[in-house]
Amino acid sequence: MRELKARILKDGRSLPGGILKVDSFINHQMDPYLMRQIAVEFIRRFASTKVNKIITIEASGIAPAVILGLLMDVPVVFAKKKKPSTMDNMLATTVYSFTKQRNYDVVVSREYLSANDHVLFIDDFLANGNAARGIVELCEQAGATLEGMGFIIEKSFQHGRERLEEMNIRVESLAVVESLDNCQIRLMEE
Amino acid sequence: MRELKARILKDGRSLPGGILKVDSFINHQMDPYLMRQIAVEFIRRFASTKVNKIITIEASGIAPAVILGLLMDVPVVFAKKKKPSTMDNMLATTVYSFTKQRNYDVVVSREYLSANDHVLFIDDFLANGNAARGIVELCEQAGATLEGMGFIIEKSFQHGRERLEEMNIRVESLAVVESLDNCQIRLMEE
Repeated sequence: MRELKARILKDGRSLPGGILKVDSFINHQMDPYLMRQIAVEFIRRFASTKVNKIITIEASGIAPAVILGLLMDVPVVFAKKKKPSTMDNMLATTVYSFTKQRNYDVVVSREYLSANDHVLFIDDFLANGNAARGIVELCEQAGATLEGMGFIIEKSFQHGRERLEEMNIRVESLAVVESLDNCQIRLMEE
Repeated sequence: MRELKARILKDGRSLPGGILKVDSFINHQMDPYLMRQIAVEFIRRFASTKVNKIITIEASGIAPAVILGLLMDVPVVFAKKKKPSTMDNMLATTVYSFTKQRNYDVVVSREYLSANDHVLFIDDFLANGNAARGIVELCEQAGATLEGMGFIIEKSFQHGRERLEEMNIRVESLAVVESLDNCQIRLMEE
């Protein structure tokens, strides 16, 4: 996706430790017009699937997910990272974050993820795939069909894709970062 | 806003302790079409203001804020509830949550909130107004102009509006809950 890649190279910043900061247009300040282009590209890539629900994880996945849900006219569920005091009857799993070096819960109410759902998972980043595998686990608990997973940016050197594809999950990323060595952003050619 | 009020009465649930659950359509599962109607109504209500940025707080404010940003063609910033390890040069304040009975930080990078900004704050709920006053504080720190605050649902019995209007802030709520006594949802007539 050319606009996205140009934007990453223009406005993204690579910090020591394999960190790519895109917080001027994706995950702190957001460019809604780019989010819409991203949503359109996800629709194109998953055109052959039958999706009746979008799922994401708070907070950075919500913006692309809700614009995609608007364009596709399907409900959007965001998994929470903490058990709300008012929620019972939950699907829950634990995910380890390498970035934050701690475990966190990922929680969805059973009311909003069930065996009737054909789910497309959307998130901003695919790194090692731990958060995504948490969603796979919740879909299994719910008996929901996972139609695919779409990421705005994939860091291919952290190998999340391999782990998901081993589980026969269809993975689409709109920009693939091959390397952040020496704080240089190197994107995969299409 | 008639569709919203009908939806609250149909799908909202009132729990003991003045809690209104709207997580089937606003803050866990989201109805993107309703979010779009909500965004259009905010545009109508704030038509006389000159807004060049939407601001919200993660996570439940992001969906209405980004759809509003898309329709208004302005960037959207979501304040974070925890200081990211990769963020320096921040605007920060502390907010007390009555629901969670604890303090949390509200943080925005100085890069994305400045004296050039004419800001509209959007959130799902106005209760006691503590989170909103945190945003007022961040706008003051930044020298930004706060053009107004828009909420999907206001709980008028928790008096957040009075506290904001005392500061000469324009407040618009699309549905006003007058009472949740005896777990009955009573909405204000327009």
